[in-house]
Amino acid sequence: MSQLLYEGKAKKIYDTENPELLHVQYKDEATAFNGKKKATLPGKGRLNNLICSKLFEELKDHGIESHFVKRLTETDQLVKAVKIIPLEVVVRNVVAGSLSKRLGIEEGVKIKEPIIEWYYKNDELGDPMINDDHISMLSIATPEQLEDIRRQALSVNQVLIQLFDDIDITLVDFKLEFGTLTTTGKVVLADEISPDTCRLWDKTTQEKLDKDVFRRGLADLPQTYEKLLNRLEALQK
Amino acid sequence: MSQLLYEGKAKKIYDTENPELLHVQYKDEATAFNGKKKATLPGKGRLNNLICSKLFEELKDHGIESHFVKRLTETDQLVKAVKIIPLEVVVRNVVAGSLSKRLGIEEGVKIKEPIIEWYYKNDELGDPMINDDHISMLSIATPEQLEDIRRQALSVNQVLIQLFDDIDITLVDFKLEFGTLTTTGKVVLADEISPDTCRLWDKTTQEKLDKDVFRRGLADLPQTYEKLLNRLEALQK
Repeated sequence: MSQLLYEGKAKKIYDTENPELLHVQYKDEATAFNGKKKATLPGKGRLNNLICSKLFEELKDHGIESHFVKRLTETDQLVKAVKIIPLEVVVRNVVAGSLSKRLGIEEGVKIKEPIIEWYYKNDELGDPMINDDHISMLSIATPEQLEDIRRQALSVNQVLIQLFDDIDITLVDFKLEFGTLTTTGKVVLADEISPDTCRLWDKTTQEKLDKDVFRRGLADLPQTYEKLLNRLEALQK
Repeated sequence: MSQLLYEGKAKKIYDTENPELLHVQYKDEATAFNGKKKATLPGKGRLNNLICSKLFEELKDHGIESHFVKRLTETDQLVKAVKIIPLEVVVRNVVAGSLSKRLGIEEGVKIKEPIIEWYYKNDELGDPMINDDHISMLSIATPEQLEDIRRQALSVNQVLIQLFDDIDITLVDFKLEFGTLTTTGKVVLADEISPDTCRLWDKTTQEKLDKDVFRRGLADLPQTYEKLLNRLEALQK
C-alpha cells in the first residue's frame, strides 16, 4: 500500500515500493493569489497531468533531464524522489503579471534577453522575490547550484519557446522548481510544467491559454486547458 | 550666479562656473515612507553635510573615490558632476527593516557575508527591488558597471564597518548611489552617506543613531545626529 507523503495545492505525492521513486497524483483543485481564490474544477488534474507529461517528455527528447519517469494513468505520474529546493524560478520572455506591476511596464512588451527571477517558496511570507545573496544567506542553494539552475532554466526556455511556437502560442513566462535527487544529489528539474505554471498566449488572437483565465475570471479553465492539450497532441502526430 | 539644477527631498543641487563641478546644499527637511511622513528639522542639513563630508573624506583616505571634492560651508559641499545611475544600492550586515519583513527574520540577526540589494529608483513604483536581469532589460547599467558597483559597495562597507566600530557603533545597513562622471564616464560613488541613508546602532545600548528615530518616532532627530557627529569628531582628533 502506498502512503500519502505530501499534499499540496494541486498534487498529492505518494511513496512507492522503490524509495527512489514517487507517485504524483494531479488534483482537480485550482488556487490563486496564495490560496485566497479556490475552486474544484473537474478534469483539471487529468489535463495538467497529460500536458505536463508531454512537456517533460519533450524536454527529455532535447536532453533535459527532470524528475519525470513516466505517465502512469490519466491523472498520475511516476517521478524520481527529489528534495525540493525552496525556490520558485521564474523565466520571462514577455512582460506580464508581477513584472508589469514591479517595473510599471504594460503587459505584452517583449523582453530581449530572458529574465530570471528567484522567489523564496514560503506561503507565510507570500513567496517574496529574493536575490543570490539572500539565497546564500538562507542556505537555499550554493552559488554553483544556482548557476546550474539558471543554465537549466534557460535551456528549458529555449526548448519550450520553440515547442509552443509550433502550435502558434507565445510562451510569456513560466515557473520552475528544482530538486536534488535523493540518490546522487544532482540538481534536476522537478515539480510540474503546465498551464498552472506558465503564461501562454495564442499568437493570433492573444487569447490566454493558462491559469490567468481562472485568476482573472476570463474563461472556463478546463475548456481552456483542453484546447491547449488538443494543440499539443495534434503536434505530436 | 549659480542656478538651481535639481531639488530633491533632502538636498538642492546648483551649478557652478565649472561645468565639471556642482554645489550641493543639504536641507533641513526629513521625509520617510516614500514622502508620506515629512518634517522640517532645523539643523538637519548642517548635521548631514558635516557627517557626510567626514565619511567621504574617510573613504578617500582609504582609496575610495567619490563625487565629493570638499566641504564648502556648514551645509554645503562641492562635488563632481555625475549622471546618477537610477539604482539604490543597499548593503546589509545585520537584518533590519525591509529585509526582516521580506525573509521573516527578526531585526538584529547578524549576516555572515554582506548582502547587496538593488532597488530601482522610482518614486511612482515605490523603489521596487530588482535583479541583474531587470537592470539589463531597463538599460540601467551594463553587467560590467554593475560588477564595478558591487565591488565598490563592498569596499565602502569594509571601511565604514571599521570606522563605526571604532566609535562603538554597528553599521547595520546603508544605501549608496552611484553615477558616471560627466567627464570620463567612470562609475563613482555619489549622492550622500549619512544617518539618513544608514542604520547605525550603538553597540552597547543598541540605541538607534539614524533616521529610524524619525521613521519610527523614537527620538529627536537633530539631537541623535549631533551625538553621532560628536563621536565621529572625537575620533578624528
